[in-house]
Amino acid sequence: MVRGKLKKVAGSLVLGVGLMSGSVMAGDVVEKPKVLIFDVNETLLDLASMRSSVGEALGGREDLLPLWFSTMLHYSLVSTVTRDYHDFGQIGVASLRVVAQNNGVELTDEQAKKAIITPLLTLPPHPDVKEGLARLKAEGYKIVSLTNSSNKGVQAQFENAGLLPYFDARYSIEDIQIYKPDLRSYEWVLDKLDVEPEEAMMVAAHGWDVAGAKEAGLQTTFIARPGKALFPLSKKPDHVVKDVNELADILQ
Amino acid sequence: MVRGKLKKVAGSLVLGVGLMSGSVMAGDVVEKPKVLIFDVNETLLDLASMRSSVGEALGGREDLLPLWFSTMLHYSLVSTVTRDYHDFGQIGVASLRVVAQNNGVELTDEQAKKAIITPLLTLPPHPDVKEGLARLKAEGYKIVSLTNSSNKGVQAQFENAGLLPYFDARYSIEDIQIYKPDLRSYEWVLDKLDVEPEEAMMVAAHGWDVAGAKEAGLQTTFIARPGKALFPLSKKPDHVVKDVNELADILQ
Repeated sequence: MVRGKLKKVAGSLVLGVGLMSGSVMAGDVVEKPKVLIFDVNETLLDLASMRSSVGEALGGREDLLPLWFSTMLHYSLVSTVTRDYHDFGQIGVASLRVVAQNNGVELTDEQAKKAIITPLLTLPPHPDVKEGLARLKAEGYKIVSLTNSSNKGVQAQFENAGLLPYFDARYSIEDIQIYKPDLRSYEWVLDKLDVEPEEAMMVAAHGWDVAGAKEAGLQTTFIARPGKALFPLSKKPDHVVKDVNELADILQ
Repeated sequence: MVRGKLKKVAGSLVLGVGLMSGSVMAGDVVEKPKVLIFDVNETLLDLASMRSSVGEALGGREDLLPLWFSTMLHYSLVSTVTRDYHDFGQIGVASLRVVAQNNGVELTDEQAKKAIITPLLTLPPHPDVKEGLARLKAEGYKIVSLTNSSNKGVQAQFENAGLLPYFDARYSIEDIQIYKPDLRSYEWVLDKLDVEPEEAMMVAAHGWDVAGAKEAGLQTTFIARPGKALFPLSKKPDHVVKDVNELADILQ
C-alpha cells in the first residue's frame, strides 16, 4: 500500500443504500487513512442471532428486537446528556424490561439478563469480516475498534468471535463514560491514537455513528448491513459499502 | 392552596407502574412546587391517534409506531451530541424514512411528511387533560409547557387541541437547540422562569424526561400512560400518577 496516496471517489447517496453501494463523494479527493476505527455491534458482529433470545423474553415478539436496540441506543445517550452513566449491558437489560412492560410482558431483571448478556457476548461475526480484516491488515492498515460496549464486554465478544488477532487496539467509551456519537468520544480516541481527524476512518453500520464521526472530521465508511439505513439529515459518508471486503477493495 | 406547604409522600416504585400508582418517595418531605412544567407529546396529547397514518406509510405495519418514535427520540439526541441541530418535525420525517427502509418499504420524503406532519399537529388531548389542568389552574399553580417540538409546532398543537388557555407560557428547546433530557434544557427553562430547581415540577409520561429533570434537581411526576414505563436505572420520580387528574388530587 502506498501511504498518503490520493484517491478520487465519486457518486452520491443518502437513503436507498440497499439498492446502491460503492464509493460516494464527500469531497472530490480523499487521502487514504492511517488508521481504521471499527464499530463492533452490528458492524462486525451479527445482532440478528439474538432475535430468538430477545423474542422469547418478550413473549414471542421477535419483531421487537429493533425496538429493544433502539431503546438501548436512546437511553445510552440519555445517560450521557443527563450525566448519569451506566454500563451498556446494564442499559440493555433495563431497556429490555421497559420494552417488555410497554408490551404487557412480565420480565424480571434476572430474566432480562439471561436473555441478553450471554447472547450479546457470543454474537457471531458477519461472514465477510475475517477475510476483509485480514486483507486490510495485509495492506498495512492500523486497525482498532471503538464501541459503546464495556472493555470487558468487547474483549469477551472478540474472544468468542475470534477477532482478537485482527486488532491493534480496542477502545471502549467506558473509559470516558460518554457514549457515541457524542463528538467527545471520537476526539478522545483520536487523541489516544495521536492522529488528526482526517487521518482516521470510522467504519460503522449505523447512520448515527458515521454521522458523529463525520461531524468530528474523520473519514467515514458506512457498511450497509441488511436493515441499516443512513440518516437522511446527516452529512454523507465518504464511502458506502456492502461489507468489509468491499472496503478492502476500495482501500487497497 | 397553601403555598410552600410541606407534604409528606411515601412509597416506592421503579418498574411496574401499570400495577401501582400514587405518590412515591424521593425524599421524605417535598415542598409544593411554584410552577408545573408539562411535557407535551404523549404526556398531554395522544400519539396513538397517529398509528394509522404511520402504519399506512409503513405498508400496514402499525406495530412500528413505537419504533418510529424511539428512532426519532434517539436521533434528537444524536443531533444534540453531534452539534448538528434539526427541527423535531424534520427528525420525525427522516426517522420514518429510516424505519421504512429498514423494513423494506419505499417511502419518499413527501410521503413521510404527509404521514406525520399534519397528524402530529392535530393530536387529541388525553381525556383527563383539560379537567386536570383546569383544577391545577384553579389551585393557583403557574403552568407552562416544555417540549422538543418546535415553537410553531407546539402552538399549532395547542390550538388544535384547545389547550392554549391553560398555559402561562410555552417553551421549546428550539430556542437553545438542545433536546430534552439534556440537563441544559431544564436549566434553561428554570432560568427563564426565574425559579430554583426544587421550586419546579416536571410532569411527563417519559422515563427519560423525568430522569433528566430529576438529575437537574427538579421535582418530578411521571404520568404512567398506557405503554409507558419508567427506566429502571434512573432515580425514582417524586410521584407516579395515572393521569393529570390524579396529579391535581395530590397537589390540591
